[in-house]
Amino acid sequence: MARILDGNALAATVKDELKDKIENWVNLGNRAPSLRCILVGEDRGSETYVNNIKRAASNIGINTQVLKYESTITEAQLIQEIKTLNDDGTVDAILIQLPVPETMNERNVCNAVAPEKDVDGFHIVNIGQLCVDMPSFVPATALAVIEILKRSEIETFGRNAVVANRSKNIGLPIAMILHSDKRHENGLGMDATVTICHRYTPPEQLKVFCLNADIVITATGIPKLIKADMIKPGATVIDVGLTRVIDENGKPRFVGDVDYEEVVKVAGAVTPVPGGVGPMTVAMLLQNTFQAAMQLQEKAQPKEFEDFF
Amino acid sequence: MARILDGNALAATVKDELKDKIENWVNLGNRAPSLRCILVGEDRGSETYVNNIKRAASNIGINTQVLKYESTITEAQLIQEIKTLNDDGTVDAILIQLPVPETMNERNVCNAVAPEKDVDGFHIVNIGQLCVDMPSFVPATALAVIEILKRSEIETFGRNAVVANRSKNIGLPIAMILHSDKRHENGLGMDATVTICHRYTPPEQLKVFCLNADIVITATGIPKLIKADMIKPGATVIDVGLTRVIDENGKPRFVGDVDYEEVVKVAGAVTPVPGGVGPMTVAMLLQNTFQAAMQLQEKAQPKEFEDFF
Repeated sequence: MARILDGNALAATVKDELKDKIENWVNLGNRAPSLRCILVGEDRGSETYVNNIKRAASNIGINTQVLKYESTITEAQLIQEIKTLNDDGTVDAILIQLPVPETMNERNVCNAVAPEKDVDGFHIVNIGQLCVDMPSFVPATALAVIEILKRSEIETFGRNAVVANRSKNIGLPIAMILHSDKRHENGLGMDATVTICHRYTPPEQLKVFCLNADIVITATGIPKLIKADMIKPGATVIDVGLTRVIDENGKPRFVGDVDYEEVVKVAGAVTPVPGGVGPMTVAMLLQNTFQAAMQLQEKAQPKEFEDFF
Repeated sequence: MARILDGNALAATVKDELKDKIENWVNLGNRAPSLRCILVGEDRGSETYVNNIKRAASNIGINTQVLKYESTITEAQLIQEIKTLNDDGTVDAILIQLPVPETMNERNVCNAVAPEKDVDGFHIVNIGQLCVDMPSFVPATALAVIEILKRSEIETFGRNAVVANRSKNIGLPIAMILHSDKRHENGLGMDATVTICHRYTPPEQLKVFCLNADIVITATGIPKLIKADMIKPGATVIDVGLTRVIDENGKPRFVGDVDYEEVVKVAGAVTPVPGGVGPMTVAMLLQNTFQAAMQLQEKAQPKEFEDFF
C-alpha cells in the first residue's frame, strides 16, 4: 500500500514554522505582514477558499482583509482599486481571487498587481522570472506540489514526471520547476524529464506516459481519470484535482482526478483528496505573503539601519 | 527516404515575402526598419552570424549597424549603451549577440533592452508574455523550428513531441509553443504533448521518449546523439545542433545532433545541417525586426493621421 502524503500534516508543519518566523520578525520591530484578498461577485468556492486563507493567516500572525466587490464593477474600476493597494505602504500582499467576471480580461487584472505584492505569482513579470529560474513569486498551487515532493523526500533528479495540465497558473509553473536545473538562480529546479499532457493528449498516450513516469501530477478535474493500470508500481501520484460530485447517498463531496482506492494499492506514495494539495496551497500562499512582507519592509528600511539586520 | 526540409529554400521564401512587405510599407512613407547588433569581444562564430544577418537584412531593405565593443567594457557601460539605443527613435530593433563576457550578468544585459525593441525575445517580459500565450517577440531559433514545421505542414495537434534541450533561449520557447493551446491569444500554440529532455535524462529514457515521438527536436550539441534506432518510422526530426568537428580529411565542418545518413532512412522528414534551422533563424530575426519597426513606427504616428492607414 502506498505511503499517504498527508497534506494537512505537512501544511500544519509549514504554518507552525511560519508562525515562529513571523513572531520573531515582528519582535524585531517589523509590522505584521498584511494581505488583501479581492473577491468579485458571488462564488461559494471562492468565498470558502478566501475564508480559509483569512483564518489560517490570522492564526500565524498575518493581518488579512477581504475586499468584496459586486460583479457589476468594471475592469477599469477594479484596476483602480488594485492600484490603490499597490501604493498603500501598509499592504504587503494582494490576492485577486480568480475567476473574475467575464466582463473583464483576467490577464489585465493580474498584470495590474505590483509584481512585488503579487503573491499569486500571476503577473507576467513573475511568470517570466520563474521561467528563467530567477527568484519570483510562484503560484501557490504549484508551490504546494513542489513542497509536498520535497518534504516527502521524493527523488526527482533524472526521473520521469508527467504533468497532466497546461494551465498557466498550475501546470505551467509545475512543469517549469520540475524540469529546470537546480543549480540555477532560484534553486527550485528539480532536474526531472517532464511530459506536459493536456486535453488533446490521446487517452492511450496519457497511459503510456503515466506508466513510464516516476511522478504523476494531475490537475484535470476529471474524476477517476488516473487509474491503477496507468501507474508504475512504486510511483508517486500527486492529485491537484478537486471536483464536487454527488455521492451514492445524495450528498455532495469533493474528489480528485485519481481512482484513489485502486491507485493506493499500486503507487509508492499518493496525496488524498481532500487533505492533500489543498491545505498545502493555503500554507504556500501564506509563505508567499511573509516573503512579500520581508522584501517590502526590508527595502523600506533607511540605508543607515541596514547594519542592524 | 525522408523528405528533406530545406531550410535554405524555406528561408529564401520568407525573405522574399518580407522584402515585398517592407518595400510596400516603406512606399507608404515609413522609414526603413533599422536594426542594431551589439557584439562584445572577439568570437568568430558570433561575427559570422552577425555578418550573415547584416547581409541578409540589407538584401530585404533593413538598415543594420553592427556595434562592436572590447571585452573590457563593463556591464554598467554596456547597459548605458543599450539605453541610448532604447531611447533612439531611429532604432527599431536591438540584438545583443550572446554570450557576453563572463564579467557580466547575461540576464541583466538582456533585461536592459526595451521589450518593444527586443527582437531576440530574451527580456523577461517577452518570455513571460510568450509563456502566457500573449503576443511577444519569440527567440529566432525557436521561431525557426516552429516556422519549418508550419511551412512543411507537419501535423502537431495531439501528436507527441520531444524537445531535447531546456535552455531558456531555445528549448523553453519551443516547448512552450508546441504544447500550448492554439486558441490562445498569440495563435502560436500547436497542441502537442511535449516531453522536455535534458542532460539528466538517462540515455535509455531519451530513446524511449524519442521512439514514441511524432516530432523530435534536438539541440544538444552532441554529434550523432540521435540515431536511427531512436526514431519512429515516419517521424519528423528537426536538428538545431551545430557543432564544429574536424572530418577525416582534417578539415573543419559543422554537424548537427542527428546521425543524418542513417536517420534519413527511417524518418518521414528531417532538416539537414547545415542548411536547415540555421538559415531559417536568420530569416526569423529579420521578421521580428520588421514586426518591431511596424509596431514602433505605427505607435509613433500622430493620432490625427490614424485614418490614413
